[in-house]
Amino acid sequence: MPSFATEPAHTPTPSELLAASRPDEWRRPDPRNLLQMELPGGRVLIELAPDYAPLHAANLRTLAHEHYFDGLSINRVQDNFVTQWDDPATDADPVDTRHLKPLGSAKASLPPEFTRAIDPQRPWTPLPDGDVYAPQVGFDQGFPAAHDPASGQTWLAHCYGMVGVARDIDPQSGNGSALYAVIGQAPRGLDRNLAVVGRVIEGMELLSGLPRGPAPMGFYTRPEQRVPIRSLRLAADLPESERAHVEVLRTDSATFAALVEARRNRRDAFYRVPAGKVDLCAIAIPSRTARP
Amino acid sequence: MPSFATEPAHTPTPSELLAASRPDEWRRPDPRNLLQMELPGGRVLIELAPDYAPLHAANLRTLAHEHYFDGLSINRVQDNFVTQWDDPATDADPVDTRHLKPLGSAKASLPPEFTRAIDPQRPWTPLPDGDVYAPQVGFDQGFPAAHDPASGQTWLAHCYGMVGVARDIDPQSGNGSALYAVIGQAPRGLDRNLAVVGRVIEGMELLSGLPRGPAPMGFYTRPEQRVPIRSLRLAADLPESERAHVEVLRTDSATFAALVEARRNRRDAFYRVPAGKVDLCAIAIPSRTARP
Repeated sequence: MPSFATEPAHTPTPSELLAASRPDEWRRPDPRNLLQMELPGGRVLIELAPDYAPLHAANLRTLAHEHYFDGLSINRVQDNFVTQWDDPATDADPVDTRHLKPLGSAKASLPPEFTRAIDPQRPWTPLPDGDVYAPQVGFDQGFPAAHDPASGQTWLAHCYGMVGVARDIDPQSGNGSALYAVIGQAPRGLDRNLAVVGRVIEGMELLSGLPRGPAPMGFYTRPEQRVPIRSLRLAADLPESERAHVEVLRTDSATFAALVEARRNRRDAFYRVPAGKVDLCAIAIPSRTARP
Repeated sequence: MPSFATEPAHTPTPSELLAASRPDEWRRPDPRNLLQMELPGGRVLIELAPDYAPLHAANLRTLAHEHYFDGLSINRVQDNFVTQWDDPATDADPVDTRHLKPLGSAKASLPPEFTRAIDPQRPWTPLPDGDVYAPQVGFDQGFPAAHDPASGQTWLAHCYGMVGVARDIDPQSGNGSALYAVIGQAPRGLDRNLAVVGRVIEGMELLSGLPRGPAPMGFYTRPEQRVPIRSLRLAADLPESERAHVEVLRTDSATFAALVEARRNRRDAFYRVPAGKVDLCAIAIPSRTARP
């Protein structure tokens, strides 16, 4: 068993690797793919992945454009699973449809965009260590994803911080008016069963660090437990002065590759045994504040 | 790709499986292996795993017996990583040793119990789907663990809810006076590098649902952010009337096997594609309140 005494003295820390990164290794999310959600505790930024769920992303843009989420709330925090925000009137069972907030111009039903065809022209950053759930895993332009060459399909993986569209039993019942973020061990069993629309790139702790709801599935039981959404906007709909300025490390960059390798084999004085492997969902994708 | 239309109509839910379980499929943790930590929000129960870290478990019993943790606090909550509780005086850098709470009869240094020899006589419930990090994974009497037949070693896995002993760079510097619980994606790179001493079997949401600390590594920056520990006791040290009454589903039971299989292949109206696989750390081990 290797020990640190026989290994190179030092693996660069993430901070050191990021400090040495080049400016062109970072990208700014397209404002048409950037959602800004204002909570009492601060701002959550979500980057949409329209290449995987184009109709869901388009519906979300419509909902944001028409201020659908403003005044709605986080109504469900289920430990080791998801934080979900939507119209609290949907919590009632049966739902009293008279009190639901109208969807406006957004569609009420969408085709199930749970997987898509692999595009061999698209950049793909594979991981070398395998995966319990899928034949191949890696990163597609900033998002953790799986490939199944046999079926020719690819899908986004339910890793920590990924955002999906809640739905009812009917696979076409999701429309983006109810969203969840993964806050625990990756629930990869959801992969291919729900539309994953994006990833939280800033403010994740505002979704994960909430009290868990006491009712089944983590629903809050009293209105005052809910976390109100002050606003949820598409950055492209905001004046330049109100847009978030953020950049994300490119997952096809040399610095990202070095981060992955440092995570696989961390050799420093603390670690006696480098793991030698890394799971798709155990890799953090760095983001940082950008200049306006 | 299978769809629910071609699969059996229904996979039993966890509730249904547990409702049909037999009484002898449940076990009560030995009071000498059960820690009861009282926080302002409620009680956290931790089952110790003395077979993996006997000296650490013994030291923890001593610390609890002498009320070491009473009045200390949760001082660090790092998003997607760990919640840690210890003496807040250790947060200072450099630590002012004059203000540290004395360890009493407990040892200040322990051998690194990070792995142990596989005991072929010991019951072992293997999982069938492989693992990114270890040659074999499964459950050993209630704890998620890994086996490496080549080295003959086994170790507890850093899954959600597992409790480990924090240490400094010196592998012998851990003694149990600083403990952490995993609150995010399993940081399996820690496996074999730290002593894992147990698992949270009740009250996990009191550790995971806390605000993340704003300083590096999730440290709180103001004393009032810390979560005070009212008491941490070994159940065996408490009068019968104050002991927690809890039981845990045996991981070598038929009901547990059925739960694992339901997690691997969930076939019901909601799921279009059963995962077909399950990761070690994606399996919940049920516990429930027992009669006194």
